[in-house]
Amino acid sequence: MAALALSFLGCRPGRGDVHAAVPPARPAVAPSGLVSSSTALPADDGQWLIPAKDYASTRFSGLDQINATNVGGLKVAWTFSTGVSKGHEGAPLVVNGTLYVVTPYSPATPNVLYALDLTRPGAPAKWSYRPKVMPAAQGVACCDVVNRGASYAGGRIFYNTLDAQTVAVDAETGQEAWVTRVGDINRGESITMAPLVVKDKVLVGNSGGEFGIRGWLTALDTATGKVAWKAYHTGPDADALIGPLFKPFYVAEQGRDLGVSSWPPDMWKIGGGGVWGWISYDPDLDLVYYGTSNPGPWNPDQRPGDNKWTCSIFARNPDTGQARWAYQWTPHDLHDYDGVNEQVLLDLPIGEKTRKVLVRPERNGYIYVLDRTTGEVLSADPFGYITSSSGVDTKTGRLMGVEAEKPEVGKVVRDICPAAPGMKDWQPSAWSPRTGLLYVPHQNLCMDVEGTEANYIAGTPFVGMNVKMYAGPGGNRGELLAWDVVGRRKAWAIPEAFPAWSGALATAGDLVFYGTMDGWFKALDARAGKVLWQFKTGSGIIGQPVTYRGPDGKQYVAVYAGVGGWSGAIVSGNLDPRDGTAALGFVNAMTDLPQKTTAGGMLYVFSL
Amino acid sequence: MAALALSFLGCRPGRGDVHAAVPPARPAVAPSGLVSSSTALPADDGQWLIPAKDYASTRFSGLDQINATNVGGLKVAWTFSTGVSKGHEGAPLVVNGTLYVVTPYSPATPNVLYALDLTRPGAPAKWSYRPKVMPAAQGVACCDVVNRGASYAGGRIFYNTLDAQTVAVDAETGQEAWVTRVGDINRGESITMAPLVVKDKVLVGNSGGEFGIRGWLTALDTATGKVAWKAYHTGPDADALIGPLFKPFYVAEQGRDLGVSSWPPDMWKIGGGGVWGWISYDPDLDLVYYGTSNPGPWNPDQRPGDNKWTCSIFARNPDTGQARWAYQWTPHDLHDYDGVNEQVLLDLPIGEKTRKVLVRPERNGYIYVLDRTTGEVLSADPFGYITSSSGVDTKTGRLMGVEAEKPEVGKVVRDICPAAPGMKDWQPSAWSPRTGLLYVPHQNLCMDVEGTEANYIAGTPFVGMNVKMYAGPGGNRGELLAWDVVGRRKAWAIPEAFPAWSGALATAGDLVFYGTMDGWFKALDARAGKVLWQFKTGSGIIGQPVTYRGPDGKQYVAVYAGVGGWSGAIVSGNLDPRDGTAALGFVNAMTDLPQKTTAGGMLYVFSL
Repeated sequence: MAALALSFLGCRPGRGDVHAAVPPARPAVAPSGLVSSSTALPADDGQWLIPAKDYASTRFSGLDQINATNVGGLKVAWTFSTGVSKGHEGAPLVVNGTLYVVTPYSPATPNVLYALDLTRPGAPAKWSYRPKVMPAAQGVACCDVVNRGASYAGGRIFYNTLDAQTVAVDAETGQEAWVTRVGDINRGESITMAPLVVKDKVLVGNSGGEFGIRGWLTALDTATGKVAWKAYHTGPDADALIGPLFKPFYVAEQGRDLGVSSWPPDMWKIGGGGVWGWISYDPDLDLVYYGTSNPGPWNPDQRPGDNKWTCSIFARNPDTGQARWAYQWTPHDLHDYDGVNEQVLLDLPIGEKTRKVLVRPERNGYIYVLDRTTGEVLSADPFGYITSSSGVDTKTGRLMGVEAEKPEVGKVVRDICPAAPGMKDWQPSAWSPRTGLLYVPHQNLCMDVEGTEANYIAGTPFVGMNVKMYAGPGGNRGELLAWDVVGRRKAWAIPEAFPAWSGALATAGDLVFYGTMDGWFKALDARAGKVLWQFKTGSGIIGQPVTYRGPDGKQYVAVYAGVGGWSGAIVSGNLDPRDGTAALGFVNAMTDLPQKTTAGGMLYVFSL
Repeated sequence: MAALALSFLGCRPGRGDVHAAVPPARPAVAPSGLVSSSTALPADDGQWLIPAKDYASTRFSGLDQINATNVGGLKVAWTFSTGVSKGHEGAPLVVNGTLYVVTPYSPATPNVLYALDLTRPGAPAKWSYRPKVMPAAQGVACCDVVNRGASYAGGRIFYNTLDAQTVAVDAETGQEAWVTRVGDINRGESITMAPLVVKDKVLVGNSGGEFGIRGWLTALDTATGKVAWKAYHTGPDADALIGPLFKPFYVAEQGRDLGVSSWPPDMWKIGGGGVWGWISYDPDLDLVYYGTSNPGPWNPDQRPGDNKWTCSIFARNPDTGQARWAYQWTPHDLHDYDGVNEQVLLDLPIGEKTRKVLVRPERNGYIYVLDRTTGEVLSADPFGYITSSSGVDTKTGRLMGVEAEKPEVGKVVRDICPAAPGMKDWQPSAWSPRTGLLYVPHQNLCMDVEGTEANYIAGTPFVGMNVKMYAGPGGNRGELLAWDVVGRRKAWAIPEAFPAWSGALATAGDLVFYGTMDGWFKALDARAGKVLWQFKTGSGIIGQPVTYRGPDGKQYVAVYAGVGGWSGAIVSGNLDPRDGTAALGFVNAMTDLPQKTTAGGMLYVFSL
């Protein structure tokens, strides 16, 4: 099925029904063009303005100079050290001949933004910008002090700091335009996500689902940094910006103030539901899409009810924040199945017609295809081994949980699959309109859990669960999966010893790039799934690869190496492998990682 | 002159008078062969067993697969991250298909030894060895927490830890053979030097000249780690292992207990004279050669006298430690001119005959040629701009100081050249028997100083001098100098913006490799001094490049990137550039370094 789709698309792109909602040929892929016409960039596929490449979040580049026939000759062009030995989950940006990277947090290098001149590869940074970041944030980030990148728009670089500030920096000069403190680190709010700029708004969400935060997404004015709106994900409809426009598809999401009534009294005030993942935007529907994280505490007995709007997705108007629809992937989450993953916006032939869909490889183990106009679940197919649920009822939209897998206080419940990081965590997929395949880096982990009573103290861990993770069936803890979205089936997969915790990149050279936690950066044949090239970087890779056209006209591929994150905390945090429950139970599954890689922080740039 | 020597040597090596004392063709270049015949390695120029390559400290490799015609195609083969963002001054070792690196100290990675299997480039470390190191050492190392490398002998890797231990590790298995605590960190003793193994002794010296230590060199039994002898560099002759065999060439070094009488009462007990640089060995004369560091405190008014045996060189019997001769480069040091640099042992045509000499590019600004049998100074020529002395009297051996440059308490004395790190610091030179040139990476710095009263408190800084350094004449703070040793003249030099703080490597491919503090790794034409190739590493380079033949038969070149050390402490220590006196005054000369590079710690391995 995939092969048919491929050749169809590859040869006759003009007639293909399977394509990105915002195809590469359209200038709209350059989000800055929507911000300010005076600073509009030409539609240039050689740049990389936001981590997801385009509003549809395809992470597909039209560059094809590097392809299957020559990728074997790819070599290191230059490197740049961040000086930070924590997890590097970020994506480089490339704008107007400059490459921008944001570092993870460290006391000496606190979320520093570096601007590297691509006309002088290897030259010192043109400038660097050092925000003032409170070191307290280190102790509050649940899962390493990562930063997932910046976004460019209208001549400025926007990004978030670990201690919950959003900054705007002039892309040319490095001068600070504004800084807005959007969260309170003393209440457990940190920020690790990359913001998205839509029109004149910077969209930012908070982290801290393990600290009893109350989750939100906020919009800041790009010019001034002032808060334009803020939508909470627990509490009354008024706080959630749920109003007359709200038309959820399913009954479960209909009703007043569900963000209050689906919780025990007052528990919604510390109920989690942050936003530390990805946001997509459909300019035609004028809707932004993003997911919300787990409810807190993890111990579900402390929060009977659906716990809305945690583990959900929202479609909102970017100007007002008003919700159009919502859908809860995982009601009353039992297993930390945050709903924050990327949503890829595609127009696909579903049934008899082309539909505007949203494809979401979800933490609970299903690849969902939703009608992005209405929030209807068109399909939800497992993409790995699942014991925690038996499927999704597409009539009600309801995830069908397995009662025997419910955690209990004082009892060890075993063999819950997927484990807490889900079948797939934050690490973003890539989509190729030429192959019709979604390339999904993900994990294959199960866990044993035992509930405990969690006590809320502001700014301290609020979890209530002892977890030990381990490899799922087959023993490979991860894989790079190629998923035929229309055919609703796996095309092929590359098994990996460790969770595939890096982002994926697809190119018109019919290549797929991703990295492994033991430091191999790989290029695959996008159709056959064969490894065509690989290079050993100095540290495990959990960053997001990107590609760009340099000022010399050559195609480059860039990726951060620097192991860490939740999965790699055993290395970046120097954790004791004998404590399996460390890093919320991830250490138990990663005791061999310290023998397979070392900490680091380095940007690698490759070319032919 | 140089060109003549070159062609003569290059074409007729058999007849050349200019050659390494221990030419590459002789098996003796593999020191392990002298330790134990049962574990003797074949004479294999494809390996790299000690940082200086051979006992003569030539850092010359007979490998010539990479040469002037093809070096332009050199590319990164693989990389290895240490996870440490401090100064990486170490040299990799290559033995039996395994590459060994020791990391600088960090709490998470305390002088860890990694063994990397070269038959599987990029594979995880075969094993790593983590010594137990006291974190207190961090606060005691004067000039970053560097480690200059390990030495291989008889199936074991020997190296020192920052907190003054020597360890022996099985090279095959990574099992600890023994650990010996040789110094007391609570009294300011740290160790940064690479040990040298001669026969059945591991030779180790202490650091801490800025902490009131009493310097020594000790010999440990390679089998057990037990101390065989210990020679102090201050105090009575009995402590200095100065006995009947001692025959110094000059009057100034003759007399009883000069290590006491050349000091104010008891000041020799805290007088410095450590050993943190290099040791060479002549198997025929059966003598080891090494230098001693500065006297303490820096304030010279507190220690009238010659301050023997600081800033000196010793020739000793390796079995007993008994001194054969000594020579004080810089009597009553005024400017921190440690005498610890490398000594290259060569047999050279001096005057009418071939003489066994020792070539020493010394911190005080002169390249000395000494008869290594007697300690006679045959020549001492300035290799840069000097104001602190007017020359060396070769009749008396005495450095002729300039009175006006003497530091005083409460008065700023200006324009002292070279500055405290000297014309050249620890960074080792390389010698090519094919060109007759010594390749000397060094600095060009001057300083202003003001003396202060230093009070001795054990384990705390004992300096008594405020220093501000700056660029010397020409404005280039460093250069890679090619020095015609026989002709006693500069052949050519490559100026560098920053101090050339990396080691140098010379090869039979007629290439010279070195790195810069802003991260360029360069290959020069060894004869013409032209830059043939350069690659930008992620962080500034202060490591020691080496070359080896891989198991695949290909030639590789390896070097650490990772800026720091005394010169780069502004980056690795995140020091405030506004405090020019920080890092003992080095920060004043390096305020622009943070704009030119970033911290890091990565091994780069290159091949064609």
